[in-house]
Amino acid sequence: MKEETLTPQQAQQTISTTRQTVGETICALATQPGGAIGIVRVSGQQAIEITDRIFHSRSGRKLTSAKGNTLHYGEIHDKTGNTIDDVLVSVFLSPHSYTGENSTEIACHGSAYILNQVVKALIDAGCRQALPGEYTQRAYLNGKMDLSQAEAVADLISASNRASHQVAMSQLKGHFSSELSLLREQLLKITSLLELELDFSDHEELEFADRSELKALAETIHERIAGLRKSFETGNALKKGVPVAIVGKTNVGKSTLLNCLLHEEKAIVSDIHGTTRDVIEDTTEIHGITFRFIDTAGIRRTTDQVEQLGIERAYQKMDEAAIVLWVVDQQPTAEELAEMQHLTEGKKLIAIFNKMDNKTEKPQPSDEVTPYIYISAKLKQNIDALETAIYEAADIPEINENSVIITSARHYEALTRADESILRVIDGMNMQLSGDLISEDLRICLDQLADITGGQITTHEVLGNIFQHFCIGK
Amino acid sequence: MKEETLTPQQAQQTISTTRQTVGETICALATQPGGAIGIVRVSGQQAIEITDRIFHSRSGRKLTSAKGNTLHYGEIHDKTGNTIDDVLVSVFLSPHSYTGENSTEIACHGSAYILNQVVKALIDAGCRQALPGEYTQRAYLNGKMDLSQAEAVADLISASNRASHQVAMSQLKGHFSSELSLLREQLLKITSLLELELDFSDHEELEFADRSELKALAETIHERIAGLRKSFETGNALKKGVPVAIVGKTNVGKSTLLNCLLHEEKAIVSDIHGTTRDVIEDTTEIHGITFRFIDTAGIRRTTDQVEQLGIERAYQKMDEAAIVLWVVDQQPTAEELAEMQHLTEGKKLIAIFNKMDNKTEKPQPSDEVTPYIYISAKLKQNIDALETAIYEAADIPEINENSVIITSARHYEALTRADESILRVIDGMNMQLSGDLISEDLRICLDQLADITGGQITTHEVLGNIFQHFCIGK
Repeated sequence: MKEETLTPQQAQQTISTTRQTVGETICALATQPGGAIGIVRVSGQQAIEITDRIFHSRSGRKLTSAKGNTLHYGEIHDKTGNTIDDVLVSVFLSPHSYTGENSTEIACHGSAYILNQVVKALIDAGCRQALPGEYTQRAYLNGKMDLSQAEAVADLISASNRASHQVAMSQLKGHFSSELSLLREQLLKITSLLELELDFSDHEELEFADRSELKALAETIHERIAGLRKSFETGNALKKGVPVAIVGKTNVGKSTLLNCLLHEEKAIVSDIHGTTRDVIEDTTEIHGITFRFIDTAGIRRTTDQVEQLGIERAYQKMDEAAIVLWVVDQQPTAEELAEMQHLTEGKKLIAIFNKMDNKTEKPQPSDEVTPYIYISAKLKQNIDALETAIYEAADIPEINENSVIITSARHYEALTRADESILRVIDGMNMQLSGDLISEDLRICLDQLADITGGQITTHEVLGNIFQHFCIGK
Repeated sequence: MKEETLTPQQAQQTISTTRQTVGETICALATQPGGAIGIVRVSGQQAIEITDRIFHSRSGRKLTSAKGNTLHYGEIHDKTGNTIDDVLVSVFLSPHSYTGENSTEIACHGSAYILNQVVKALIDAGCRQALPGEYTQRAYLNGKMDLSQAEAVADLISASNRASHQVAMSQLKGHFSSELSLLREQLLKITSLLELELDFSDHEELEFADRSELKALAETIHERIAGLRKSFETGNALKKGVPVAIVGKTNVGKSTLLNCLLHEEKAIVSDIHGTTRDVIEDTTEIHGITFRFIDTAGIRRTTDQVEQLGIERAYQKMDEAAIVLWVVDQQPTAEELAEMQHLTEGKKLIAIFNKMDNKTEKPQPSDEVTPYIYISAKLKQNIDALETAIYEAADIPEINENSVIITSARHYEALTRADESILRVIDGMNMQLSGDLISEDLRICLDQLADITGGQITTHEVLGNIFQHFCIGK
């Protein structure tokens, strides 16, 4: 499927056709129903006029005469004049709104019934319901954020731990975008120097003397792109959780250990009546990172039969793990240890000596590579040390709100293509190719990086793919 | 348990002691997490100062210098200085807020993680987390609404159909309160006329001539209170759904009919990713009223065995029903009809002749009281007519936003006691008792009505009972 390169204006037109008219005023529920408060968003040229049609201000003043960033108390009526609810309406004037358009937000009581009625009233008054991600898409099209920042919005909403939250926040703040724009500047510098070289290529006195400097610059670019690509590993682990397998013989206390590690964090939101939490079974957070215990059910099933290492069915499952917790309650034989090390090659192996409450002698670490951690899962002793060991095994770099970590497959793909082309540029320089032969790859590299932030925008198919995964109301 | 009567000030003090200090600034999540937007509410004397401690305005201005009803864009930082989110803060100045206190609302991205972090940051900055219903309780204590209006807020949030929404809206708008205040005025009029009578009782020329007028007034009051009490039947049906039983022999199409009646309404909120809906099994809405099909599983079980009327185990269950749908596919015998009428005495019986697609002859209505409705559940024919019959059988009065319908057991209890005392007043008048003997019952009646709106307020136990059923954040 060939991708055309469009100007933002062309892209906007294309999207207009496929995703209905951008000029239309859209409305959507922006909160989950069922809380004390619910919010319906309206955005578009007619947002304030349309809201005014169903809003009856307590003060008697019209919203159309309101200043931006002000709040107005009143009632929403349906088309038959019945009161739907007492509401607070926020008014935002273009360009000082999320989308950059005129916008209102109607805060009403949070029942699904009322929220539905408000949306219906808005539709009756001239809005159409927003498509998923259409608010953020409009924000992007109106230049309020670039494409990678828009994608960070979705990541931010789905972030469930400190690390992925910080990464999304960093991306939303534009740290990734700045990094890309720095790379593009350097690429443009190479391009212009090569053009200069071409312009003067007739002059014999001008040698390819600057090439070493250009090559160094290209290599710096390659290294940085490779670094960004490598960060996708971390990004993926943060998004999906670091996969961990717990293995060991029957009755060594694997289930007790798992329960120990899964101790639930008392979230404040869980106090709220009716709160629904996205419970993904068997994940836990250690030092702000999510760890995912893979198919522990299968591993647990091994307690039915005594087995050499207690991992028969878990063999394949263990393959998915990045970290393997090997639980023992007595000194493993040299053969057992060797087999386990063989099975977990390329993974982080943590050997855990459980039930230290029952034993007096500790097994001697027979191998430097797999030191034992002594715990009692039952008495919850030394679990902190185990958690730290698991966290360290995950080898996640320290993450803060300035960290640039790739979390999107789309970005990874673009970076991979960019990297391939910058490597071809370096090859070309090594082969002393002339500037016009090199510049094509430089252009590809530039385009790939530009695609990430959407600067030179990309087809409506790409945009569609990005925004269709948003929720409605964002 | 004796109830003392306290002034609002005393009540406030009592509540302060039991529910922590009202002077404290409280915070809570006000929306369900998981949407595009989430809102955290802050209320109390220090609300704006505390919010300012964690808020960094884009404009650099402090919230403490902000006007009321304005919106401010910026970031929320945690105590280590990390950005939690980009937010919009609404500022409300006392008394122009929901609670009547200084308040802020922080609108951030709707993930549970972020909302939790914002609440934690507020707690670190000096807030405490709100108790369920504490916002509305403060609104009540600060005179923003009376107690019955406060209760309407919870009803409004849980309203899931037009009728219960309209009833809650009416109560929130104070229509019930006005009705009660009218009754209290009339009671006070009787009281003062009786006092006048007492003052002049030494004068022989003054007869008990006005008594007939007073009695008429008391009877009007009784009628109105009785009317309000009776509306509780409707209120209960609206809240819990009108109970309907479907009975009939095996294979007459009861399940098909039930599925037919339960056809799901396409709600707009259901389009939203992750929307959780409170699905109460086997209820449906007909003309804005909820109908609840009771233990249809038990009734369905009768398909295992052929039975005279197919209702063996459903006997007792049928007792709970207000409406019985009797499905037949051929002319019932006179005995069957008589037995069914006997079994459903005091209920609304709707006889349904199903499978009209298969039959050419229609059973003759052998009784005026139970006319047949001819349908085909399979072909969904004439279901509209059946729905109208069910709706009419429920005998719910036309409800609009001015309807005063009692939905609270607490109100019903108070009205019952008020009714008893006004009846004793009427008795006393009939017996020509002197004014001082009657006035005690008049006072009880007044107090009972006052308790509903909380005017002469009621113990903290009553308040506790009311507000503990609210969600946090309201």
